[in-house]
Amino acid sequence: MTYRVMGVDPGLTRCGLAVVDIEPNRHSTLVAVGVVGTDPGRSLDERLLVISEAVDAWLDLHEPQVLAVERVFSQLNVSTVMGTAQASGVVIVSAARRGIPVALHTPTEVKAAVTGNGQADKVAVTKMVTKILRLKTSPRPADAADALALAITHAWRRGAQPGAAPGASVTPAQRIWAEAEARARRR
Amino acid sequence: MTYRVMGVDPGLTRCGLAVVDIEPNRHSTLVAVGVVGTDPGRSLDERLLVISEAVDAWLDLHEPQVLAVERVFSQLNVSTVMGTAQASGVVIVSAARRGIPVALHTPTEVKAAVTGNGQADKVAVTKMVTKILRLKTSPRPADAADALALAITHAWRRGAQPGAAPGASVTPAQRIWAEAEARARRR
Repeated sequence: MTYRVMGVDPGLTRCGLAVVDIEPNRHSTLVAVGVVGTDPGRSLDERLLVISEAVDAWLDLHEPQVLAVERVFSQLNVSTVMGTAQASGVVIVSAARRGIPVALHTPTEVKAAVTGNGQADKVAVTKMVTKILRLKTSPRPADAADALALAITHAWRRGAQPGAAPGASVTPAQRIWAEAEARARRR
Repeated sequence: MTYRVMGVDPGLTRCGLAVVDIEPNRHSTLVAVGVVGTDPGRSLDERLLVISEAVDAWLDLHEPQVLAVERVFSQLNVSTVMGTAQASGVVIVSAARRGIPVALHTPTEVKAAVTGNGQADKVAVTKMVTKILRLKTSPRPADAADALALAITHAWRRGAQPGAAPGASVTPAQRIWAEAEARARRR
């Protein structure tokens, strides 16, 4: 009944990759975490190819049941947003080619799911991810921690959705999480 | 010496695809033109996969020497811009996987190259593309005409760049075009 989720925090310069195994009771275990970086001095097609090949290799090696990707917004009007969107397209299609379902989660959803606060900062997210996965050292850089948080978020939200896990009862942790999410939505 | 260029006007709902053969003297011949459409009711991963597979099929069938793609900007703050960027990432990586070089051109560069006016409207671009390729009917929809214009633009700009075509003399058409481009840059 272990649910294997791959999380990707897309980016052209740094793309966070993570694979986590999650039990129905939310117990979560790190399988792999890393970052694929591309040189801003290379051409866009070379950079996207590096990301595409890294994600292909991770999907083939770890065979996740689902890919969770951060949803990108044009409201984030920064210079890197188009590259991030292009990278996310490449990542999503790698999963789609393999018939692996893709789920998108917003940064607010991720922060709320792992910390109980949709406005949490990167330090708080990294701290909670380290605790949830019982890691001895915090995952670095922040993109790697974000990819882990995405994977955890997807599994936890799925478990809490009515009908997503037929017959599953709501655990105390799920109830706390659902309340945290409701608080985040009210903000 | 024929130069085969594939042009793509990326988009999630409609993606224009075109292949054009261009001689050193700028004589341009239509090879293929079309549009791949995806249903906005489908999921993002399904839509990106449809685009990816269509571009893969065109690249394998037509074997272009280069892929010319419209450069996307975050300044175009419309609701479709992130989907367009994601589609462009998928298109670019399809070429990169095959070792086909990718060139990006802005809408202004394309309009200037085919009409002599960087601010030309879609009607003017379609009209000039129809004339340049000696077509009996205008390509429809505008995405298809834009993809053709991109392919033509790439070949013509390449030919006009110093050193890009060693030993090639400048034809009257190239001179007219270079002047048009210089006018567009001054705007």
